[in-house]
Amino acid sequence: MNKPKAENLTIHIGEVDAPMRASRFGHEGAALWLTGLSGSGKSTVAHRVERLLIERGVHAFVLDGDNIRHGLNADLGFSPEDRKENIRRIAQVARLFVESGAVVLTAFVSPYRADRDSARALLPEGRFIEVFIDTPIEVCETRDPKGLYRKARAGEITNLTGIGAPYEPPLAPELRVDTSAHDLDTAAGLIIDYLESRGIVPAAR
Amino acid sequence: MNKPKAENLTIHIGEVDAPMRASRFGHEGAALWLTGLSGSGKSTVAHRVERLLIERGVHAFVLDGDNIRHGLNADLGFSPEDRKENIRRIAQVARLFVESGAVVLTAFVSPYRADRDSARALLPEGRFIEVFIDTPIEVCETRDPKGLYRKARAGEITNLTGIGAPYEPPLAPELRVDTSAHDLDTAAGLIIDYLESRGIVPAAR
Repeated sequence: MNKPKAENLTIHIGEVDAPMRASRFGHEGAALWLTGLSGSGKSTVAHRVERLLIERGVHAFVLDGDNIRHGLNADLGFSPEDRKENIRRIAQVARLFVESGAVVLTAFVSPYRADRDSARALLPEGRFIEVFIDTPIEVCETRDPKGLYRKARAGEITNLTGIGAPYEPPLAPELRVDTSAHDLDTAAGLIIDYLESRGIVPAAR
Repeated sequence: MNKPKAENLTIHIGEVDAPMRASRFGHEGAALWLTGLSGSGKSTVAHRVERLLIERGVHAFVLDGDNIRHGLNADLGFSPEDRKENIRRIAQVARLFVESGAVVLTAFVSPYRADRDSARALLPEGRFIEVFIDTPIEVCETRDPKGLYRKARAGEITNLTGIGAPYEPPLAPELRVDTSAHDLDTAAGLIIDYLESRGIVPAAR
């Protein structure tokens, strides 16, 4: 962890610990880190998982471009430095949600292994769950929900991940989901099954 | 709200809304923004409220120097620009917690009215609750939990809020709590009573 720049700080010991939260809330905290190309289905899957969890009373929340790029990270652009800072802040916010006892889902391309590994390092063992949304780029390009592939092919943007910029696939993700091979509920179900298998959330009745 | 710097963004409509969260969790989301001098008791009160709420099953979480300055804002110092950015990010994170349906408590000096008003503007009416921890500076200085007043009096630090830097007290805080006039549970109880009175959390049985 970085050291803060000044020493005007004390560590305040809270009155609540993780087991107390888990006991009261009925589930553990964890971060589901979805990574994959634009159009792979990260945000769509994340929001379906969020809904299914909330229907069970699990405190779930999605961080995605909508609520991060327009808010916390509205000061950041798309330079390499800003992309790195973007992911750093998201990882720190995810950590806070996990500490709060929530199941947080992040839905960002997050193309670099080093950035994802830095995020993983912020969390206790087993609480960072890397979910590789491994949809073939041809499918992503056909979907092209933001028109980015079209713009990249037309030369209007030059740094689209998978076209003009690299995507470093996870080497050992906890989960791999190809959204071209499953319908949405099945894809979401794979993630929820994993959470149940690890005791993060109780099995559905 | 700031506009993001690039247009490679789409607004993703989530599947969950605030009423659905409130229904499943049994309480509303809100931000309790504690402001006051160093030593006024912000963090101590915030952690007691957090514990009392969690014991009721309310998803509560404290943001304070411990988990913010060492993490999300570890890149920031104490220059005027960095102090402003510090509060901006905290406000954005508080907004995310409120959107998730949580009761988030922030415990930062946050001396400037403009910064607190910016935080208030991020949240729907009634979901930003400014709590002025209005403990007399003489009491704060006697407590001096971080040794800051001693250092300021010795000239070792020059910009301590209340000594070398201004504190702009809230003009119309939702709540005012003097921790030198109440014991800790009473002070925390004032805040919880307020949450109950506004229907943020259900009344205790």
